[in-house]
Amino acid sequence: MKAEIICIGTELLMGQIVNTNAQFFASELHELGIDSYFQTTVGDNEKRIHEVLELALKRSDIIITSGGLGPTSDDLTHESIASYFNVKPTLDKKVLSEIEKKFSSRGYKKMPAMNKKQAYKPIDAKWIPNENGTARGIIWDVGRESLIVNRISIREGIRSTIHNPQLTILTFPGVPSELYSMWNETAKPYLKKISGGNSIFSRTLKFTGIGESALAEMIEPVFDLKNPTVAPYAGLGEVKIRVTSKSKNLAKAKKDVLKTCKSILLKTKDYYFGDDEESLEEIVGKLLIAKKKSIALAESCTGGFLSKRLTDVAGSSKYIKLNLVTYANEAKNKMLNVPDEILKEHGSVSPQVAFLMAKGIKDLASADMGFSITGVAGPSGGSKEKPVGLVYFAIAYGNKVKVEKKQFSYKYSRADIRWLATQFALNWIRESLMVIR
Amino acid sequence: MKAEIICIGTELLMGQIVNTNAQFFASELHELGIDSYFQTTVGDNEKRIHEVLELALKRSDIIITSGGLGPTSDDLTHESIASYFNVKPTLDKKVLSEIEKKFSSRGYKKMPAMNKKQAYKPIDAKWIPNENGTARGIIWDVGRESLIVNRISIREGIRSTIHNPQLTILTFPGVPSELYSMWNETAKPYLKKISGGNSIFSRTLKFTGIGESALAEMIEPVFDLKNPTVAPYAGLGEVKIRVTSKSKNLAKAKKDVLKTCKSILLKTKDYYFGDDEESLEEIVGKLLIAKKKSIALAESCTGGFLSKRLTDVAGSSKYIKLNLVTYANEAKNKMLNVPDEILKEHGSVSPQVAFLMAKGIKDLASADMGFSITGVAGPSGGSKEKPVGLVYFAIAYGNKVKVEKKQFSYKYSRADIRWLATQFALNWIRESLMVIR
Repeated sequence: MKAEIICIGTELLMGQIVNTNAQFFASELHELGIDSYFQTTVGDNEKRIHEVLELALKRSDIIITSGGLGPTSDDLTHESIASYFNVKPTLDKKVLSEIEKKFSSRGYKKMPAMNKKQAYKPIDAKWIPNENGTARGIIWDVGRESLIVNRISIREGIRSTIHNPQLTILTFPGVPSELYSMWNETAKPYLKKISGGNSIFSRTLKFTGIGESALAEMIEPVFDLKNPTVAPYAGLGEVKIRVTSKSKNLAKAKKDVLKTCKSILLKTKDYYFGDDEESLEEIVGKLLIAKKKSIALAESCTGGFLSKRLTDVAGSSKYIKLNLVTYANEAKNKMLNVPDEILKEHGSVSPQVAFLMAKGIKDLASADMGFSITGVAGPSGGSKEKPVGLVYFAIAYGNKVKVEKKQFSYKYSRADIRWLATQFALNWIRESLMVIR
Repeated sequence: MKAEIICIGTELLMGQIVNTNAQFFASELHELGIDSYFQTTVGDNEKRIHEVLELALKRSDIIITSGGLGPTSDDLTHESIASYFNVKPTLDKKVLSEIEKKFSSRGYKKMPAMNKKQAYKPIDAKWIPNENGTARGIIWDVGRESLIVNRISIREGIRSTIHNPQLTILTFPGVPSELYSMWNETAKPYLKKISGGNSIFSRTLKFTGIGESALAEMIEPVFDLKNPTVAPYAGLGEVKIRVTSKSKNLAKAKKDVLKTCKSILLKTKDYYFGDDEESLEEIVGKLLIAKKKSIALAESCTGGFLSKRLTDVAGSSKYIKLNLVTYANEAKNKMLNVPDEILKEHGSVSPQVAFLMAKGIKDLASADMGFSITGVAGPSGGSKEKPVGLVYFAIAYGNKVKVEKKQFSYKYSRADIRWLATQFALNWIRESLMVIR
């Protein structure tokens, strides 16, 4: 069974956005054990969508599209797929009223007329519901003979005939957040079922504080394994290693994966922080709850980014009472009791100030742990002594305060330096909590 | 003149990396005024590279590839392109010695034998030098009759004959940093010369506080324009309208775009906030600088997200001194002087508390403007009276405090509600600053 990805959207051809959907589909298909050899991007243009479909239908069993399901006249995906098979989309009145309700629940008096088209689909296609928007996708098993015959008898100039009873088209909107939940809730279980009943088990090990190639070198031979397969995925300040096994028997697949994971972790555990969808902030949150500790933050160069990440986690109010963004020296002095003389003598980006900020926020918030960040995020504000990318961190716990220094490469952008600083901070907080009783 | 992008690499098919090269090429081609209708991704596989080439050569004049120029045996791009045209690559001894020098300058005793293949190319192709690595690309004008004839006379089973004297293939390695400088130094000047000099001008108008379809309906006829073209792009809490014009004359293209933008803004200006790459937080930052005002934030449910966004902007320390994340009632009371009785009587998510938080942070930070957010981000913590998605905002300026209430749909995720709250907040701050003298 082969799948093929078609991303539809003139904004992709114009380079306005990066195509992250293709990566999402590809990675998911890989996990499902479904081969995928081609990805195509095409604009919102019926003729060219037909061209791309024509080819994809010849070489693949499953066609997955994203984009072009919006309400405007340039959103053409469903219309183009239907017209390719010479089928006229029909109105689903139930779905229309659901879309109308969505608008009224969001405070609109009336659904805009153009959204009506989102309730049309080929009559025998099934909807993929979209919890987060009005653009539903479809699952259409177009490989059935009835449709093919219909298409061939009516459309002319078709060079090749499709005889592939497996042929199925799945469509998704282009907005990633909508697409992800549609995939997970509807498409993934469907594909799992039709892709032959092989059980797939997969675990992703997550690492920080090490680069992709250094980590890969530690465990190199595993990348040649055939089942389970092992693949690395590099991100900024984070590397993932995905171990996937395919078997008729789920228990066996699981056992194989866990065994391989164990052997990987033997060599890499110093950099490992969690599995699968677990984020660093979630793990820190779980540790704070497990250890019954509260934390308070004083941020300078990250400007609230660390607080944002920790509070991304639902229920974080259990361990966070108060965080401060003290951008100005005046605020560091007034709120955190960092003496003016220290700020003058050492500057706000210094181990001394990081130390006092962590202590100050711990005391102010009456928290178990105080954490501080102060650095130069750039692009300006750097000097020879304190270049862009220099960041100090401190943890105050009990009567102790520890300080760490990191020099991120000046080649990183402001946004990247701020991200990397929060990654380092969360990982250090995690490590510190691990050893607290 | 049409160009087409082919990205080659099994890591893309497995979803291990996001394909940022496609976006880079697409955006560069758009700027050069060269149309590009298709992007294809294919693995490191000679047969499938031939398949993709076969199609691309039929419909485009310029083929741009990335990936597959490394030294390992699975790097096949040059070999596959050459074999498609039945050409045997020849060794360029000068380039070989340059690669050897590169290795010795990096401290290697000897060039690894496998790197020798990076010195081979079709004899009549030109090199694209690579300053940052050993993988050179090529510019190959394969449209010349001699080659085509050669190919047709030798290879069999070819269905279509190419007669396109413009046909040119450009290859690049997959590593973005290598590719960018190769593009800018060699490929871009070459393409500029051969593409005939059409100029493109484009402007993106950005809107918030309105959905894509409602906005599109206000200006619907413009989507049918042929030159300039107008296209909408929807995001969460933000809609973009891009207006693009193509002309032999850049001044004319620009004039046409600005005229169309003006007519769009006549009907939509209430929701418009900026152009092109400008973000809401940048615009708020510019307004704060222009009006010489400082701002201080007190966040509850957004947990630092608004502070993070405002400090994403370089130079934001000019107008931000101190922000607070007061998650706990105790913190609202202690830091912002919100009386316990008010918190008890109305609850922390209430207009009264939003009011006092904004006033409290303004006073505490001695800022010109105080801004507060308190709400229920979910997924738990909602009630019948105060459901998930209910958020209060307040602005304190001068002696006045204004409060706003928003009820975001409970269907949005915690992350989306927090994002939408910061969008609303930034836009309200923007609107408020606009009318301040």
